[in-house]
Amino acid sequence: MPQPLRVALAGVGIVGVGVIKLIDTNRALIERRAGRPIEIVAVSARDRSRDRGIDISRFAWVDDAATLAAAHDVDVVVELVGGADGPALTLARETLSAGKPFVTANKAMIAHHGLELAAIAEQRGVPLKYEAAVAGGIPVIKGLREGAAANVISQVFGILNGTCNYILTEMEERGSDFTDVLAEAQRLGYAEADPSFDIDGVDAAHKLSILASLAFGTAVDFGAIQITGIRHVISADIAEAAALGYRVRLVGHGEANSKGLFQRVHPCLVPLSHPLAHVSGSLNAVVAEGNFVGRLFFQGRGAGEGPTASAVVADLIDIARGETGPAFAMPVASLAKPATAPAGDRRGRAYLRFTVADRPGVLAEITAAMRDAGVSIESLIQRGVAGDGNALIAMVTHTGPERSVVDALDRLDGSQSLAGKPMLMHILDD
Amino acid sequence: MPQPLRVALAGVGIVGVGVIKLIDTNRALIERRAGRPIEIVAVSARDRSRDRGIDISRFAWVDDAATLAAAHDVDVVVELVGGADGPALTLARETLSAGKPFVTANKAMIAHHGLELAAIAEQRGVPLKYEAAVAGGIPVIKGLREGAAANVISQVFGILNGTCNYILTEMEERGSDFTDVLAEAQRLGYAEADPSFDIDGVDAAHKLSILASLAFGTAVDFGAIQITGIRHVISADIAEAAALGYRVRLVGHGEANSKGLFQRVHPCLVPLSHPLAHVSGSLNAVVAEGNFVGRLFFQGRGAGEGPTASAVVADLIDIARGETGPAFAMPVASLAKPATAPAGDRRGRAYLRFTVADRPGVLAEITAAMRDAGVSIESLIQRGVAGDGNALIAMVTHTGPERSVVDALDRLDGSQSLAGKPMLMHILDD
Repeated sequence: MPQPLRVALAGVGIVGVGVIKLIDTNRALIERRAGRPIEIVAVSARDRSRDRGIDISRFAWVDDAATLAAAHDVDVVVELVGGADGPALTLARETLSAGKPFVTANKAMIAHHGLELAAIAEQRGVPLKYEAAVAGGIPVIKGLREGAAANVISQVFGILNGTCNYILTEMEERGSDFTDVLAEAQRLGYAEADPSFDIDGVDAAHKLSILASLAFGTAVDFGAIQITGIRHVISADIAEAAALGYRVRLVGHGEANSKGLFQRVHPCLVPLSHPLAHVSGSLNAVVAEGNFVGRLFFQGRGAGEGPTASAVVADLIDIARGETGPAFAMPVASLAKPATAPAGDRRGRAYLRFTVADRPGVLAEITAAMRDAGVSIESLIQRGVAGDGNALIAMVTHTGPERSVVDALDRLDGSQSLAGKPMLMHILDD
Repeated sequence: MPQPLRVALAGVGIVGVGVIKLIDTNRALIERRAGRPIEIVAVSARDRSRDRGIDISRFAWVDDAATLAAAHDVDVVVELVGGADGPALTLARETLSAGKPFVTANKAMIAHHGLELAAIAEQRGVPLKYEAAVAGGIPVIKGLREGAAANVISQVFGILNGTCNYILTEMEERGSDFTDVLAEAQRLGYAEADPSFDIDGVDAAHKLSILASLAFGTAVDFGAIQITGIRHVISADIAEAAALGYRVRLVGHGEANSKGLFQRVHPCLVPLSHPLAHVSGSLNAVVAEGNFVGRLFFQGRGAGEGPTASAVVADLIDIARGETGPAFAMPVASLAKPATAPAGDRRGRAYLRFTVADRPGVLAEITAAMRDAGVSIESLIQRGVAGDGNALIAMVTHTGPERSVVDALDRLDGSQSLAGKPMLMHILDD
């Protein structure tokens, strides 16, 4: 009879409850697949008595999660506390330093401290696993770390935040405004009370920084990511995009090119012919392009109790099977540290939307700025806006350097003709 | 300096050349990811002097591939010879029996002899890896064996044969007939001179049997698969399907239900809202549904030099990293052997197409057979067929037991009204 893998759970919120339910429900199958039973032996959380819908009294209770690192009857610690620093980070450091495998769903911590933790894990020869940190139940960490490992990957991009995708999809389907959909998403529990990490793109950027490291063999570099959220996308943007044959999606995009590593999170226009255009609601999806495999596409549920628990327990099964190996697919010392590639060198098409005073000369002023910056316009539409006396001008540029578009907007900065900050979204062409 | 993983290649056709090119091109990155160099040291093929576009004289040449199993300077054998039996099987048995890891892209051999080989591998404690055997470069073996391992999987299905998908997509886009598109596919090298393994669904069934084993924890059972190819799909079927909002795809479908294991390869109608409807040309895609993760969707290139080589080398990197573990995700003795679930118990909608003599009473005869078998018709169309004096009747049934549709067709068997065998395709509803 093989020894069970004894697991301690730090954090028993939605995901922790999911992990407990999953191990209860699929116990026999997991034992066959893992080669040994996986048993939760101890839990720790802020509030012991909160009603979680399941009985946790059968597990040993630990007030201070940090003691799990040293517990002699715990083989592996699963951290579901969250937060880049604080108790989660202490627990990670102490668990790995104690020579114990560590599993986490904490993208913020991996984005900010993953290299430090991977180095400790490496030194102690124990696994640091974080499949649940990116794209929930989709095995995309494994897909990049192992499945596509033979490839030089040129780019990785995807829809990495289900809350934003839900909001954009709802705006698209109902023609609603951002604030209305956000309020409803909060009411339904799809968005946090403080939604800024999601809607400002920070959560997607955490995930992108991790994917980029695995894809390109580079050190995680969260600080280098250009981040734009979806707060300023208005329903008219989505309507204009639709009229032009596009959908608006918040895309995290990493690219390794001759100038270095480019990483950006931004709302962009995705043509209907692109697989990301069909990723709706709270789904997540990731595309990776390798020099031999071509384009790989992964899609699934990116968050929630079941999918996240599925990823956590997959990591536990890997550990039970004896899988070790470097957290970022190679030793930390082997990870490259490329320069940050400037966005301005990139070439592409862009969508621009201006809210303008509805008076003579405005269109001339805007198009002159485009001309002077060397931006060529592919299509343009002007519409009156009901009520406030303003008009809306939306355009799509021809392919050109991104810096020219930025230059054009700089030229218009402070113009009395503009009734608000212009909206710039890049177009994700194939 | 870590020891290189020394690889022998048996078979240097398209995929073998791809593996050599890949290891040459991505050598440095592979060494970083694998933790050691991966070196091809020996090759074996039927014809030493054939022009392959690359120099293979730098590798040791072996006339009899079977000697690679015992070669003391070879750590792992990659089999790219093909064929379920014969030299490939001999090489597999001898390599694994010699306690050496074995990598193959050979779906026919794994479908027919995978359990025997896995048992040898298990006994000797060495890996048997076959990521390239299913869906080319898409890491779907790994996705099921490891990524979704925490889940009870209820069904796995997908587009597993790029040749058939190419033919069906071309028929759809150009309105061409099957035989014309097949001839062109052969001319372009997308279909074999003897295309029967592909177009009759056997290749897809090989792959399905492997996916089903991994998904359900059951022994590979190729013999239990109901197989229908695409030979009898006519352009009118594709046009009628399109008019009804469907595309025709060859789908391999495995399901674990209370009656046992159901496995079928068949052309079916996929609604445009389904992700499989957008898998075009030679792409492959696999969907798996787990009880916690929900629906996972994987898509990519299912064949060809680059994608297949990517999967072979991913297996080599796993081996270089020290990954071992059972070939079918659990010990062979743990694999269940469920009964074959009868198709007749399944409920669903179906598409039926009859080519009939264009005379009074034919429609009455067909609809009476439907009524007598208890099949309810959702929609029906009759069209005259140019030239031969026949007419075409296409219908979609309401949801009902599959056995009723079979019963209806049995009632019409031998009818003088039918100008050919009716076409039955199931509808892949969500």
